[in-house]
Amino acid sequence: MRVSGSVAECSLTDVVAAVDHDEAGEWLHGLIAELYPIPRSITGDGVRQTLARIGEEIPLSVKEVATGTEVLDWTVPREWNIRDACIKDLDGDRVVDFQRSNLHVMSYSVPVERRVSREELGEHLFSLPDHPDWIPYRTSYYNEAWGFCVSERQREALRDAEYYVLIDSTLANGALTYAECLLEGELHDEVLVSCHVCHPSLCNDNLSGIAVATALARTLAEPRRRFSYRFLFVPGTIGSITWLARNEAHLDRVKHGLVLTCVGDGGRSTYKRSRRGDAEVDRAMAHVLRHSGQDYELLDFSPWGYDERQYCSPGFDLPVGCLMRTPHGRFPEYHTSADDLDLVRPEALADSYAKCLRLFDVLERNRTYLNTTPKGEPQLGRRGLYQAVGGQVDREAVQMAMLWVLNQSDGSKDLLEIATRSSLSYETIANAAALLRDHGLLDEARR
Amino acid sequence: MRVSGSVAECSLTDVVAAVDHDEAGEWLHGLIAELYPIPRSITGDGVRQTLARIGEEIPLSVKEVATGTEVLDWTVPREWNIRDACIKDLDGDRVVDFQRSNLHVMSYSVPVERRVSREELGEHLFSLPDHPDWIPYRTSYYNEAWGFCVSERQREALRDAEYYVLIDSTLANGALTYAECLLEGELHDEVLVSCHVCHPSLCNDNLSGIAVATALARTLAEPRRRFSYRFLFVPGTIGSITWLARNEAHLDRVKHGLVLTCVGDGGRSTYKRSRRGDAEVDRAMAHVLRHSGQDYELLDFSPWGYDERQYCSPGFDLPVGCLMRTPHGRFPEYHTSADDLDLVRPEALADSYAKCLRLFDVLERNRTYLNTTPKGEPQLGRRGLYQAVGGQVDREAVQMAMLWVLNQSDGSKDLLEIATRSSLSYETIANAAALLRDHGLLDEARR
Amino acid sequence: MRVSGSVAECSLTDVVAAVDHDEAGEWLHGLIAELYPIPRSITGDGVRQTLARIGEEIPLSVKEVATGTEVLDWTVPREWNIRDACIKDLDGDRVVDFQRSNLHVMSYSVPVERRVSREELGEHLFSLPDHPDWIPYRTSYYNEAWGFCVSERQREALRDAEYYVLIDSTLANGALTYAECLLEGELHDEVLVSCHVCHPSLCNDNLSGIAVATALARTLAEPRRRFSYRFLFVPGTIGSITWLARNEAHLDRVKHGLVLTCVGDGGRSTYKRSRRGDAEVDRAMAHVLRHSGQDYELLDFSPWGYDERQYCSPGFDLPVGCLMRTPHGRFPEYHTSADDLDLVRPEALADSYAKCLRLFDVLERNRTYLNTTPKGEPQLGRRGLYQAVGGQVDREAVQMAMLWVLNQSDGSKDLLEIATRSSLSYETIANAAALLRDHGLLDEARR
Repeated sequence: MRVSGSVAECSLTDVVAAVDHDEAGEWLHGLIAELYPIPRSITGDGVRQTLARIGEEIPLSVKEVATGTEVLDWTVPREWNIRDACIKDLDGDRVVDFQRSNLHVMSYSVPVERRVSREELGEHLFSLPDHPDWIPYRTSYYNEAWGFCVSERQREALRDAEYYVLIDSTLANGALTYAECLLEGELHDEVLVSCHVCHPSLCNDNLSGIAVATALARTLAEPRRRFSYRFLFVPGTIGSITWLARNEAHLDRVKHGLVLTCVGDGGRSTYKRSRRGDAEVDRAMAHVLRHSGQDYELLDFSPWGYDERQYCSPGFDLPVGCLMRTPHGRFPEYHTSADDLDLVRPEALADSYAKCLRLFDVLERNRTYLNTTPKGEPQLGRRGLYQAVGGQVDREAVQMAMLWVLNQSDGSKDLLEIATRSSLSYETIANAAALLRDHGLLDEARR
Repeated sequence: MRVSGSVAECSLTDVVAAVDHDEAGEWLHGLIAELYPIPRSITGDGVRQTLARIGEEIPLSVKEVATGTEVLDWTVPREWNIRDACIKDLDGDRVVDFQRSNLHVMSYSVPVERRVSREELGEHLFSLPDHPDWIPYRTSYYNEAWGFCVSERQREALRDAEYYVLIDSTLANGALTYAECLLEGELHDEVLVSCHVCHPSLCNDNLSGIAVATALARTLAEPRRRFSYRFLFVPGTIGSITWLARNEAHLDRVKHGLVLTCVGDGGRSTYKRSRRGDAEVDRAMAHVLRHSGQDYELLDFSPWGYDERQYCSPGFDLPVGCLMRTPHGRFPEYHTSADDLDLVRPEALADSYAKCLRLFDVLERNRTYLNTTPKGEPQLGRRGLYQAVGGQVDREAVQMAMLWVLNQSDGSKDLLEIATRSSLSYETIANAAALLRDHGLLDEARR
Repeated sequence: MRVSGSVAECSLTDVVAAVDHDEAGEWLHGLIAELYPIPRSITGDGVRQTLARIGEEIPLSVKEVATGTEVLDWTVPREWNIRDACIKDLDGDRVVDFQRSNLHVMSYSVPVERRVSREELGEHLFSLPDHPDWIPYRTSYYNEAWGFCVSERQREALRDAEYYVLIDSTLANGALTYAECLLEGELHDEVLVSCHVCHPSLCNDNLSGIAVATALARTLAEPRRRFSYRFLFVPGTIGSITWLARNEAHLDRVKHGLVLTCVGDGGRSTYKRSRRGDAEVDRAMAHVLRHSGQDYELLDFSPWGYDERQYCSPGFDLPVGCLMRTPHGRFPEYHTSADDLDLVRPEALADSYAKCLRLFDVLERNRTYLNTTPKGEPQLGRRGLYQAVGGQVDREAVQMAMLWVLNQSDGSKDLLEIATRSSLSYETIANAAALLRDHGLLDEARR
C-alpha cells in the first residue's frame, strides 16, 4: 500500500492522487480479518490485543484508566474478561461454543457454571426468529446478568431437559483501555478521527472503522501536514466520554473531526453532519461527496448514533461529523453474526479511505484570503497569469477561478465557499488561489 | 360540556384529552342560536344584551366608554339603537320587516318616517342580484344615511308608486360597550383572545367566534394556568382600538394572542400568522395544525381582516394571529342572510374549540431549558430513565426525545423548536422534558 | 423622440408613461447606424469621433488621460490610430481591405508594410471555420503584434505564393479618451450608467449600449430628478479602471448603477445582479422585469462580463448591475462581423430603453417611511382617503395598498419591499404612499 512509500516531503494532494484502490482495499480487508476473532468489549484484554495489533502499524499511545474513575457524568466500570463459555448437554458435548463465535456470550456476562433446566436456560437465550441462522449481538454493561446469543436453529435444537452452562468470565476492578495516535503538524490545531473498538466479531460495525482509521494514520504519517491529526481508538460511549473528561482543557484544538463507522459495506457513502450543521468539515465533506461522481447521502445531525453524540453534546459542540456507508439499523446484518468478513468489501473500504484523504486534503488547503489589489481587477496579463496554464479548456477554467478568487477574497469567504458559489471544483479554485498567492495577489486573512 | 366539571387542580393537558366533541358542538351551536336574533351593531343595546347572555356563562367585566372619547386616532361614535323598521305599502302591509330579520336595516341608519316614491326608495335599497333570495349586510357607521337591505326578489316585488318607510332608531350620545373576562394564572403574562360582537344575525361572522371564546373561557376557568387569559368581546375595529387605547400601559403582558372569527363553517382550519410571522403563537398553532391529521392552511399576515389589524399595527406589533375556517370573502354566504344557523356546524365549532385548547396546552407547556450536564450525555440508565416508560415503541420514542431535548437544550431553543427539528410530536418532547426536569437534568433557561 | 419635448418640470413617471416605442426604436437604430463605420479601439481618434457625435445629443465632458498614467494596478497604454490596411496581391489588388470593414485589422496591430510569403501571412490570419462568411473580431492590446481578421472564404482564396501587407497604424504616446455626462439632481447621490466605447463595427456589443445610454441621458435631462445621473462612455476595462482611479474619493455618491451592453438583439431581457446581490438596484430591476409582462432572466453576479467586474471588485463593491438582452457568448454573432445593423432591432432597443426609464422611476420614488400614527390604523374615512380614488377595482387596490404601507412602514422596509411582500405593483404602492404622505400619515424615515 502507498502508505509505506518514502517520498520525503510530498504533499497530501500528491498522496491523494497516488492512492491505489486495489492495494488499499486488500490491505484494509486483511487487517479486519486479523482482528475479527478477538473477543472485544468495552474493557478487557480483547481491547488490549486489538490495540497491540494496530500499534504494529502506527505509533500508538495506550492509556489505562482505573475502574471507578469518575468521567463526566459517568464512572469507569469494572473490567470484564472472558476465557471460555459454552452450553453443554449432559453428555458433555458443547452445543453452543464461545470458541466458535465470541458473539455467543452476551458481553459483560457474569461468571456462571452450573446445571440448569431448559426452562431456566430459555430465559438467558437471545435469538432472531426472522433470521434463523444469525447470532444476535447483545450486551449488558450496566446490569449484572448472563446470557447466550444463539441462532434460532440452535435454540430449536435445545430439546433436552437439562444442560450445563459455563461462562468463565471475570468482572472485577481493573481498567478501561483506549489508545491515541497523534501525528503532529505545523499547527497545534487538530483533526480528530475517532472509531470505537468495543465490538467483538462484527466487521462493518466497527472493524471497518478501525481499519480505515489505521490506514489513514499510516498514510498521513508521510506528507507535510498543516494540521495535527489525532486518531482515537476508544470503546463506544464510555471511551469517548473518558477521553473528553481527560482532555477537556485542550478541546479548543479540535478544528475538525470525523467518527468512522460502518465504512465497509456495499452501500453509498453517508455523511451525518455535526451538530453545528455548517462546520467547515460539514461543508468540506459535502463538497468531496458532491464531486465524487457517486451517489451519496447527507444527513442532519441527530443525537442517535455513535461517539459524535458525545463530541457534539451541547457543552462541547465540537465540529465532528460521522462518515458511514449504510447507517446502523438500516442494514439487516447490523449487530448480528452476518456482519462478517463477506459483508465488508475491499473496494468499499478503499473508497471510504480515499474519501477521507480527499476530505483532509480539502481541509489542509482551505484558506480565507484577502485580495491585495482589491480595487479593480489586477492586470493578470502583465504577470503572465493568463499563460500560466496548459490547455485551452483548463486555461479558461483557471482564469475564471482566478477572477472568482480575486473578487470574493474580502476576508469573509474561504476557498470552499468560493468553489461552491462559482460552481467550480475545489481543485480548480485552490490551484488558482495558490497561483495568485505566489504572485503576491492574495494574503492569508486568518487561520 | 366538560367545562362544567369540577376536577380540582387538573391540568390543561387532561382537559384537552377529555374534550367531548359532540357535547361541545351542541353547546356551541346552542349558544349561537340564542344570540342569533339580537340586533347588534358597534354600539347599543344589542351589544349589551349579547354581553349579558355571555355573562351568564363566564365572569365578565362590561365597560362603557362615552361617545366622544378619543381613542388613538379615532373618536367613540354616537350610540345607535333601533326598535323597529319596515317598508309598508299604502295599504299598511309591512312588505319589508325588521322584525323578521334585523339585516333588513342598514346598520347605523338614521331615523326616518315618511312616504317616498318608488324611485327615491330605490336609492336606499341594497340587494344581491346574484343571490336573489339572500339579504345583504350593510353598515354606514361614519356617514349619516339610511337604507334597507332586501332580497332581490323583495326588490322586484316593490312595484307600487309610493311606500311608507319607517326606521325607528336613535343615534345619540351614549357609549360604546365591550367586555373582558380575565382568568388570572400564575403569571401576569397574558394570552389574549379577541372576538368581535358587532354583527347582527350573522352566524359564522361572528357568533361562531363569540361562542368559541365563551366556551374557552368556561373551560379554562378550571385547570391550573401558568398564563393569565384575557378574553375580549369588542365591536370590530373601534372596539379593539378603544381597548388598546385604554390598556396601552400593560400591552407588554400580552405574550400570545388569537383573534377568533368564522370558526364554524365546514371548511378546513386556516391560521393567519401575526405580523411577526414567527411568534411563538404562530409556531405553536402551525404545530397543532400539522399534527391535527386534517387539512389546513397557513396564511402570512396581511393588514386586511379583523382586529388583528389593530393588534398588529406597527406601533403595537403584538404576537396575535387569527384562527378561522374559511376566511372572510372566500365563502359566498359572507355578509349575507345565508350566514345563518345552517352554515355553522356543531362539529366544526367543536373542532375549532379543541384546536384552541391544544394551542393553549402547547403554549402552557413550552419552555426553554438548559441541560444541567451538558458535557457528554448524562447516564440515563443509572437514573432509571431507560425504563421510565411503558411499551417498546413508546420507550424508543421517549428515549429519542430525551436525547433530543438534552442535546438541543443550550438555552437557544424551546421545546416547540426541538419538536420541529426532531420531527417528534410536541407531546413526546414535552413528556421527555418533564421526565428529565424531574430528574434534575434540565433547568428552565428563561420564561 | 419624446426626449426632445419641452414640458417643463414634468415627472419621470409622466415621461415613462409617454414613451413612444416606435419613435424611440427608430432614433436608437439611427444613431447606431451613424456610429457603425467608425474604427474604435480602447484609445485613439475612433473614440474621439464617437464621443463627438454623442456630444451633439447630450452635454458631454471629454477627458484625455496621458499614456503612462498609473491607474489602480494598470498603466494607461500607448494610443493606437489606424488610417489604412490591406492585403494586396502582387497585382496590387486589395483582396482584404480595411476600408470595407474595420474588423479586418486586429485592434492595436503594430505598423507593417512588406512582402510576405503565404505561409508567413497565414500566421497572422484569424478566421472562423464554423462561420465561413463572418469576420472575427480580435485585439492584442498588451502584446505587440499584427494581424488580419478575414472570413474563412477570404482565407481560402489566398492561394498566391506571396502578398503585400500594409497596416498604416501608429502606436505611440498619446492619451486614453473617455467622456462623462452628469445630469445634476436634487441630491448629490448618483445613479451611474456605464457603457463601453472601444468596439469597432459591432452593433449589439456595444453600439446598442452607447445608443441607449445616450437616449437615456437625453430623456432624463428634462424631468425633475431626485438623483444625479452620471453617464460614462469609457473603453472597456482600462476605461472604467481609469475612471475609478480618478474618482475614488467620490465613489460613495454612487447609490445605484447599471452597465448597458448587448441591449439590442431580439432575445429576452437579462439582468445580472451586482456583487451584493440584493442592492436596491437589483431589487428594483427584478421588480421592473417581473411586472414587464415579458419573459426575462435574472443572473447572479459573476466576475466575468463587462465593466461591472471593475465596479464590483471587492475594494469598491458598488451596487452596479448589468442589463443585457442575450448575454455575451450566448449568441453566435458575438464578436464577429455578423453583430451588425440587422442583429440589433429597433423594438428591442426601445424596450431596453423603456425598462431603464422604468427602473429609474422606481429608484426615484422609492422611500422608507415611518407611519406617523403607528398605534392602530388611522381613520382613513375621516380624511376622505376611502374616496380618494376612482373605479371600484382601483379603489380596493389602493385601499389595500394604503393599509400595507401603513402596516409595514416602521422604518425597516422601503416601498419596493412592501410591493413585493404585498404582491401589489410598485405603482399602486407608490401612489398609495404619496396619498398617505400628503395627508401627513407618513414621514420619510431616511434617505
